Amino acid sequence: MEHELDRGIAVVRSDDGVYDVHLDPGWVVGGGVNGGYVLAVVGNALRAELTDVGQPDPLSVSAYFLTPSRPGPARVRLRKVRVGGRRTTVAASLVQDEDGFEVERVSLLGVYGSLGEPGEVERQVPQPDLPPVEECLDASDASEEFLRAAPLLQRFGTRFDPEHAGWRTGKPSGQGVVQGWFKLADDRPLDPVALLLVVDALPPATYDLGRPGWAPTLELTAHVRAKPAPGWAIVRHATHNVSGGQFEEDCEVWDSTGRLVAQSRQLALLPR
Amino acid sequence: MEHELDRGIAVVRSDDGVYDVHLDPGWVVGGGVNGGYVLAVVGNALRAELTDVGQPDPLSVSAYFLTPSRPGPARVRLRKVRVGGRRTTVAASLVQDEDGFEVERVSLLGVYGSLGEPGEVERQVPQPDLPPVEECLDASDASEEFLRAAPLLQRFGTRFDPEHAGWRTGKPSGQGVVQGWFKLADDRPLDPVALLLVVDALPPATYDLGRPGWAPTLELTAHVRAKPAPGWAIVRHATHNVSGGQFEEDCEVWDSTGRLVAQSRQLALLPR
Repeated sequence: MEHELDRGIAVVRSDDGVYDVHLDPGWVVGGGVNGGYVLAVVGNALRAELTDVGQPDPLSVSAYFLTPSRPGPARVRLRKVRVGGRRTTVAASLVQDEDGFEVERVSLLGVYGSLGEPGEVERQVPQPDLPPVEECLDASDASEEFLRAAPLLQRFGTRFDPEHAGWRTGKPSGQGVVQGWFKLADDRPLDPVALLLVVDALPPATYDLGRPGWAPTLELTAHVRAKPAPGWAIVRHATHNVSGGQFEEDCEVWDSTGRLVAQSRQLALLPR
Repeated sequence: MEHELDRGIAVVRSDDGVYDVHLDPGWVVGGGVNGGYVLAVVGNALRAELTDVGQPDPLSVSAYFLTPSRPGPARVRLRKVRVGGRRTTVAASLVQDEDGFEVERVSLLGVYGSLGEPGEVERQVPQPDLPPVEECLDASDASEEFLRAAPLLQRFGTRFDPEHAGWRTGKPSGQGVVQGWFKLADDRPLDPVALLLVVDALPPATYDLGRPGWAPTLELTAHVRAKPAPGWAIVRHATHNVSGGQFEEDCEVWDSTGRLVAQSRQLALLPR
């Protein structure tokens, strides 16, 4: 049985350094296709390109979002910037045709390698202390309007920490944190490419500051630190610096064993 | 009077999208030229290119370090990925000739714009509570060997917080923090391009974990959040996640008014 995400990020090599993809409407949020999903699509094309050389895993990926992606056909264009024995640095773009022109949606640089077996953790940020999954809140409790604007919520099995889920009922905590348990709705196991999606899967931390709405990402860098173990992950979004019409949002992902497997930071524009 | 940094990051436009530069030996640390200095060189070429359109400031810059930069001539090649009325996304590389071939040292993506006058801060990470400048420690107290390996220390007027400067005498705090007061040695005022240097100017936070030595950066993303006010800045480096032979290092820079003006995160390899 094919999982939703695998169908959504499938790539077909059509030329040297070019992969055809199809952005699925199920991953729309607000006015465009979710940035994390687009990142996973590009990340999957890079995985396909670099698996043969034993470097299938995104160690770091920095994406600059240029124009909103639309559901439908798209292409990933990639270029190897530097090929190394242990790591390869890559440049990639996701492009779509619009009125007969090729328009770039996302441009990224990344370094791929092999994460291997998770080794020892010398030091890490502890995961937040969440209530049990069954005491956390399902996104399906959100308003109908909210769900209509964000069909991608139905792709996830997110259970939000009630302490930071007041945005669902107009009572944000004011702390700038959105966190909860995370899995994909159809139980597809998480892997390094899926983590590129996970770091941009929750509502922006600005929801918890009483500033709901779309927060366009200028830049997002994700570091995948280890292969995730199966089971529920924990995801935490937090913003600490809000000024000049911008905010940064840090995301951390821990797998079911409590290991930090990914972290990301994005610079985004405050919702109007 | 020309300041050291301005001489070091001077660019001369030589062709469409090409700037000639000269990497100064005064900015060497360990086996190569300091990454933050290289970032400021590239950032200055981008500033030169985008000043005419009123977008001289780096809002976000993501650099992937490919090969060690050497003192001597170099070129910055840049390309506008997307030109907007308020922001322009750019790709750039710093290259050097080596045995008759052009070798890429650093590849980056960034978004430039105008920081304008610093507006209201809605929320920010408070600056650390440091002892007064005169009670903090000058890098010139470091061992001769240390200073020989790092001539760039003489470009800075850093005063290290004694609580996290135990690496100078083999007694690290174990907290993974290196912080202090910062200015350029010749009192050149900080500006957005200089902040690209500042975020990589202190020794790696791993020094404070008892793991001194060169920590090669794979990726560094800097967000410049506001124009810095003149005077002593405060810089803090911290690492929270050390595993799999890698660590992330977060850097925050506050200006003399206490405003957070830049933050960065890098993914680096642990010193051997």
